[in-house]
Amino acid sequence: MAHPSRTEALALREDGFAAAPTSAVPGRLDTLVEHREVALPALKPGQVLIEVIMAPVNPSDLFFIQGSYGQPRVQGQAPGFEGVGRVLASGGGDGADALIGARVAFLGTVSGSWAAHAVGDAALCIPLRDDLRDEDGAALIVNPLTALALLEGVRAAGTDAFILNAAGSQLGRLMLALARDQGLKALTVIRRPDDAEALRGLGAAEVLVSSDPGFATQAGAAIRAHKPRVLLDAVGDQGAADLFFAMPAGTRWVSYGKMSDDAPRLSQIGQLIFMDKRIEGFWLSRWLPAAPPERRAALVAEVQERFATGAWETRIGARLKLTEAVEGILPALARGNGKVMLTP
Amino acid sequence: MAHPSRTEALALREDGFAAAPTSAVPGRLDTLVEHREVALPALKPGQVLIEVIMAPVNPSDLFFIQGSYGQPRVQGQAPGFEGVGRVLASGGGDGADALIGARVAFLGTVSGSWAAHAVGDAALCIPLRDDLRDEDGAALIVNPLTALALLEGVRAAGTDAFILNAAGSQLGRLMLALARDQGLKALTVIRRPDDAEALRGLGAAEVLVSSDPGFATQAGAAIRAHKPRVLLDAVGDQGAADLFFAMPAGTRWVSYGKMSDDAPRLSQIGQLIFMDKRIEGFWLSRWLPAAPPERRAALVAEVQERFATGAWETRIGARLKLTEAVEGILPALARGNGKVMLTP
Repeated sequence: MAHPSRTEALALREDGFAAAPTSAVPGRLDTLVEHREVALPALKPGQVLIEVIMAPVNPSDLFFIQGSYGQPRVQGQAPGFEGVGRVLASGGGDGADALIGARVAFLGTVSGSWAAHAVGDAALCIPLRDDLRDEDGAALIVNPLTALALLEGVRAAGTDAFILNAAGSQLGRLMLALARDQGLKALTVIRRPDDAEALRGLGAAEVLVSSDPGFATQAGAAIRAHKPRVLLDAVGDQGAADLFFAMPAGTRWVSYGKMSDDAPRLSQIGQLIFMDKRIEGFWLSRWLPAAPPERRAALVAEVQERFATGAWETRIGARLKLTEAVEGILPALARGNGKVMLTP
Repeated sequence: MAHPSRTEALALREDGFAAAPTSAVPGRLDTLVEHREVALPALKPGQVLIEVIMAPVNPSDLFFIQGSYGQPRVQGQAPGFEGVGRVLASGGGDGADALIGARVAFLGTVSGSWAAHAVGDAALCIPLRDDLRDEDGAALIVNPLTALALLEGVRAAGTDAFILNAAGSQLGRLMLALARDQGLKALTVIRRPDDAEALRGLGAAEVLVSSDPGFATQAGAAIRAHKPRVLLDAVGDQGAADLFFAMPAGTRWVSYGKMSDDAPRLSQIGQLIFMDKRIEGFWLSRWLPAAPPERRAALVAEVQERFATGAWETRIGARLKLTEAVEGILPALARGNGKVMLTP
């Protein structure tokens, strides 16, 4: 079968990194990406050509297209870190050839997923069970593996309680469901009370609303009651730092996202010395290659099982055609009611 | 031999912790300590009574007497974390009995060293070689073991270069001499140029003066040239944070002191995620009990050998009688020309 050398995509308009710090959500998209045809890279051995079915807009994508992620942009290429699609062709190699015709979750490691076609590494493609929805397959890798890896870190820290901010996010909800099943207590922090009931339903041990005037008192009481020793932080603001300094000796602050523009102050740096606290980061792109292949395979099987059985669910906020995306992504994100999915 | 139940000391005037953050050096001493007689605790098995010869004023002592250290003050007791003295009596137990008559370096774990007599744990006493000066014996534990442990951490991080601020301090100088002998490159940061020649003489790979207008440029060039991946930080100010964010991927910021009142901002927290950087603390009081006894014994032997052979030297800035200390300590510290020693 002849396969396309060009495809429809959202193409990056800028190269490299941002000159200045950016926000979690850009003010406008049309200066960053445009809907047009882009060249597809030629298939190399170990790579596959994928007809994209659906691709999510993840927070990490928004950092990347603004030039604030851990790797530089290339003008004219499609962004998009993950997606679901069907394998059309292989660049050769046993692993790649075996995938032809399969529906797979894939990573945008060769070309991005915000496109009608993408080239992916066969070794990073995950053939999907038939009982898995496209919506779950599209968001199968970045958030779910991050959730599993972060909670593995909580257990490794020897604590049965942790604090989770931005807990209403898709990733936050995955972690809540997982924590409940693993017997871990999640102390959740959200900005507005809207999601409180939903988070309690997902098993949150505490729901703390940071806009509440009694927040500091309530957080202090929750910390004394549950003694959480890991802070899973997707925000990176002064509120995260204040929680960290209110937590017990031995606490680890694990930064895995940066939704706030704050530069938090280390007001009690002596706690690092006297209370054995530390501050570190988590990045799936570093964790994944370092994990043993059999461990990765077990986690991927667990992820599919959880979605197939309904233990996890990907909430969909909007479905947008690529032609509607430049106009539609920011309004859909602003509604904040689930993952925004792009379809060719 | 009858031994005293009371002794001359500098006694703490306050209990517990400070109500508000304090400075590295207090504004006045007479509100914190007073020269008077204090009760000595009764000797228990495993403890020894020590006639104090000399005790240093360490930065950690200054934090402690202000109520800003990792353990609370007890009013009426003597502070002083370490000293040198002669063992007068034992509370029983083989280890303690064997020390009677010996000159030892000791830790103020039962009663403080800023006194004419102190009670110490026999297991933490280090019998001294005859060729060691009292001055070196008095400051044998806190700074030297911290220096050895911190440089062990540098080597464990797999880097051959590190940045060291407050490099002109007694501890800084110990680390410089050690780094040279261990083949590690020390990039030193000092506030004023006065000590630059001395630090070069001690083998500093770079001497960066933070008050110099060209500091940021020079620091950037030194970081590019040597790629240091550990920041040994005794200051805890924005300058330390800025160096951390200018250092390469994988850098560890190790806070072991807090000489500045700054609350540094984490202006680029994304580096923790994407560049695998982390921030942690070091406290000898946690490290020491966790180290295997044979490792501690080997380090203590190394410390004595280094002082006896002149590889290390304790610079003495002033010797003060306990009767002169309340008036004399702060002016002597302000001269900044070496360790201030107290003698009964």
